[in-house]
Amino acid sequence: MQYPTHLLKLLQVFRKLPGVGGKTAERFAFELVGWKEEELAEMAQLIDTLLRELRHCPDCGCLMAAKESCAFCGNPVRDTSVLCVLASPRDVFAVEQTRQYRGIYHVLGGMLSPLEGRGVCHFDLSRLKDRLHALAVKEVILALDSTVEGDATALFLKRELESEGVHLSRLALGMPMGSSLEYVDGGTLARAVSGRQPF
Amino acid sequence: MQYPTHLLKLLQVFRKLPGVGGKTAERFAFELVGWKEEELAEMAQLIDTLLRELRHCPDCGCLMAAKESCAFCGNPVRDTSVLCVLASPRDVFAVEQTRQYRGIYHVLGGMLSPLEGRGVCHFDLSRLKDRLHALAVKEVILALDSTVEGDATALFLKRELESEGVHLSRLALGMPMGSSLEYVDGGTLARAVSGRQPF
Repeated sequence: MQYPTHLLKLLQVFRKLPGVGGKTAERFAFELVGWKEEELAEMAQLIDTLLRELRHCPDCGCLMAAKESCAFCGNPVRDTSVLCVLASPRDVFAVEQTRQYRGIYHVLGGMLSPLEGRGVCHFDLSRLKDRLHALAVKEVILALDSTVEGDATALFLKRELESEGVHLSRLALGMPMGSSLEYVDGGTLARAVSGRQPF
Repeated sequence: MQYPTHLLKLLQVFRKLPGVGGKTAERFAFELVGWKEEELAEMAQLIDTLLRELRHCPDCGCLMAAKESCAFCGNPVRDTSVLCVLASPRDVFAVEQTRQYRGIYHVLGGMLSPLEGRGVCHFDLSRLKDRLHALAVKEVILALDSTVEGDATALFLKRELESEGVHLSRLALGMPMGSSLEYVDGGTLARAVSGRQPF
């Protein structure tokens, strides 16, 4: 006996979520079968209206409620001399939650990834360069993942932005908070040593 | 800067799914933000109509498409002298996929679990007993988890059904297929020894 068609379709949709395989999709689907009608309706409504309730700022690419204006662009509290370049709108929330940064953002929308077919031509750097000049940005912080894709994107941006007369920096690499030397991998430890700071 | 309200609500809904915490809910939500409008609409529609497209058989409790009749009850191909008792409709699909069982099913809808406030009074055994007599069942297979809850439920059912004149059996406990003795835990190995079979 096969799963009913409706359930099969739902399983296929759940499997499109990151990190969700067949077994997890089944767990999710059977969990939903046990929910109340109104809970399912609420979830469906939230998903259905998602793209209408949210929008990306046309300037910096940050994600916000559709009815709100961008919390960064044109906000006099933010320091426009520092611009933080990130891969995705989600990273903006991560940086904001640190409460350590008061500058503005620029979301690239992805990283260089030849394996996923995303090359240099996929980045609209003219928009970034226009902003650098229009806002008289002095420092550009590259807040990218410390992965192969992140490193490649950072190098690419360095080459492109070097001639723009801005100070370029990248997030510090080192030991994560609360970690023991014993468990830190060699690569991280090497970067922590070379990037050691006066104490 | 906080997440937009709509996103926060979606995160809360995702966190209700089994095994999904804050970080996973965020991954799911940001994945959905990158989906196309029609993909979201399809997912929303599947979730919204889930309870209308599926139904539980009033006799055996199995899950099926709303428009179909039960694949087991009244199906002349199935052997009504053997009845398999399971905790959830999902388990029926797991047993069916083995293609080893041609009898009928009875879904309990849960297991004894004092921690979750589910006691003996939550099981409607009269319906099960009625079926045993009506169908002249000879053997009842208890296909329950080999957990504390499963063991407790099996013992409870044994006590209740012993006087019904049926042969009671429970799924075999032993080494999982493809496992090495080295990695099998002591409890499982003990049950595999006591339940050893002629070879």
